Amino acid sequence: MSSFVVALDVGGTSMKGGLVSESGAVLLSERRPTPRAEGPEAVVAAISDFISHLAASGDGVPAGVGLAVPGLVSGNSALYAANLGWRDVPATDFTTLDIPVLLGHDVRTGGLAESILGAGRGLTDFLFLPIGTGIAGASIIHGEPYGGSSGWAGEIGHTPVFPDGEQCACGQFGCLETYASAASVGRRYSLRAGLEGVKAEQVVSSDDPIAIEVWDEAVEALSLALATYTLLLDPSVIVLGGGLAEAGPALFDPVRTRLVKRLAFRDAPPLIPAALGVDAGMLGASLLGWRAAGRPELGPGWVMDVRSGPLVS
Amino acid sequence: MSSFVVALDVGGTSMKGGLVSESGAVLLSERRPTPRAEGPEAVVAAISDFISHLAASGDGVPAGVGLAVPGLVSGNSALYAANLGWRDVPATDFTTLDIPVLLGHDVRTGGLAESILGAGRGLTDFLFLPIGTGIAGASIIHGEPYGGSSGWAGEIGHTPVFPDGEQCACGQFGCLETYASAASVGRRYSLRAGLEGVKAEQVVSSDDPIAIEVWDEAVEALSLALATYTLLLDPSVIVLGGGLAEAGPALFDPVRTRLVKRLAFRDAPPLIPAALGVDAGMLGASLLGWRAAGRPELGPGWVMDVRSGPLVS
Repeated sequence: MSSFVVALDVGGTSMKGGLVSESGAVLLSERRPTPRAEGPEAVVAAISDFISHLAASGDGVPAGVGLAVPGLVSGNSALYAANLGWRDVPATDFTTLDIPVLLGHDVRTGGLAESILGAGRGLTDFLFLPIGTGIAGASIIHGEPYGGSSGWAGEIGHTPVFPDGEQCACGQFGCLETYASAASVGRRYSLRAGLEGVKAEQVVSSDDPIAIEVWDEAVEALSLALATYTLLLDPSVIVLGGGLAEAGPALFDPVRTRLVKRLAFRDAPPLIPAALGVDAGMLGASLLGWRAAGRPELGPGWVMDVRSGPLVS
Repeated sequence: MSSFVVALDVGGTSMKGGLVSESGAVLLSERRPTPRAEGPEAVVAAISDFISHLAASGDGVPAGVGLAVPGLVSGNSALYAANLGWRDVPATDFTTLDIPVLLGHDVRTGGLAESILGAGRGLTDFLFLPIGTGIAGASIIHGEPYGGSSGWAGEIGHTPVFPDGEQCACGQFGCLETYASAASVGRRYSLRAGLEGVKAEQVVSSDDPIAIEVWDEAVEALSLALATYTLLLDPSVIVLGGGLAEAGPALFDPVRTRLVKRLAFRDAPPLIPAALGVDAGMLGASLLGWRAAGRPELGPGWVMDVRSGPLVS
């Protein structure tokens, strides 16, 4: 008589967990810190504790667990996460409970949620691009997030938009992320202005010529990456999310204009804001939980209470 | 008792047709010019004639027709081809015979052949990139060529590899094709050297400093586009075909080296030569013909007499 799943979205700094019913109601939602500094095993143990706690908070036994994690992921194993120090952690290590568990890649799980419950509802082929501290995308192809031949697809943040550009923390040159992530916009402005710790949102709204220049370069980098994505994969829409999408028209308007300008012989796909904000990963994990429970049909019928504008992520 | 299909690959200058048995034997192979100068209807009529001729050359009635055409294509309609002047030509217009017809996009049909019969045999997720007069790619995703949300995917030749680069014939700036197609390599060298009509193969093998520079720029453009593709779509291999792939090590070696250099945190996929050469489109069309005939299982079991090195295309 299980009527809910445990859903957990594991990030580098915090974990967002919840209980989601078969009608899509979020029965409970909690956040805990990710004890990354304590090492890989501590994070696994913290996840297991969190899952047990959430499960015990529900009315009955959960039908399944869905878990969104960073790195290289298969359905039943966290294969590799540089960020968390994981190597080949089986899904069963994440819980002591005897219930089915399904793992998903964090960004693609968010993309799954946007595709079934959010901005991409009803669409089968589009790009979900959350722009936060870093940039990675989820290509939704034939209705499902696409991981590539070995799970490493979606690294749009490290595509070389400016071939002779600045070196990225990843070692490559001219990566989208090093110009257009929220962290990079803040960092690049701070450096040029001789200031410390200026945030991207301050740069976006500033009329300081240095801020305008840094933001212009971010917009140009994004437009180039989105033009390339459009030409390669012909998405029906591009869904922008993450913290930077909160800039709203200050982001969407110039990127849209530049994208159109970069494309000569085809239309640009519409740019639309993500609908699920910070909940995308957890909601996507709930869909994985229901898949683990043998109920893959759940999701499309859910009525979500989502905000229509861009949200903080 | 039909035991063969009619397969036709329609290019801008010539059409390659054949009869292919259910065991993959090419029973007949012929080439005719594409009467493009005579207008859209003349090309449709020439295709219809060619199909009738091929069908009549076989022993019995063909089980189906597969047709590879340029432009925007659905299975049962040639929706748009700037090159040939077509708009919404139904598949049934291409033949007077009462047999099932399936259309496919030219490059993707070649990719289908390489995936089932050629260099990508046994692989489900890779890039097929023929480099000829122009450059377009076929992304094989989950074992099938991917057309995107509306059939316009694969335009890797028009991705902006050099954002401030030369203007392409398409109107955009810095397109891969304008640096790295066989036509562009010849054109760019001829222009700089003050010569006329030098071919790409002469540029590749020349030790003239201008030729070295032009070839270097082509290699750099290709490496950038392939790095971006790899990061976005994580292909298991990249299959290079078309006329320029005939350059062999002069193309593969430097592109491989540069691709590895552009990728810092992940391995480069192997670059391998296409196996089917100029026959890829026709062989892919034969697979479409068998699908039209209700025999989609044919192909994987065929033993092809393919050359293992790069071929002219």
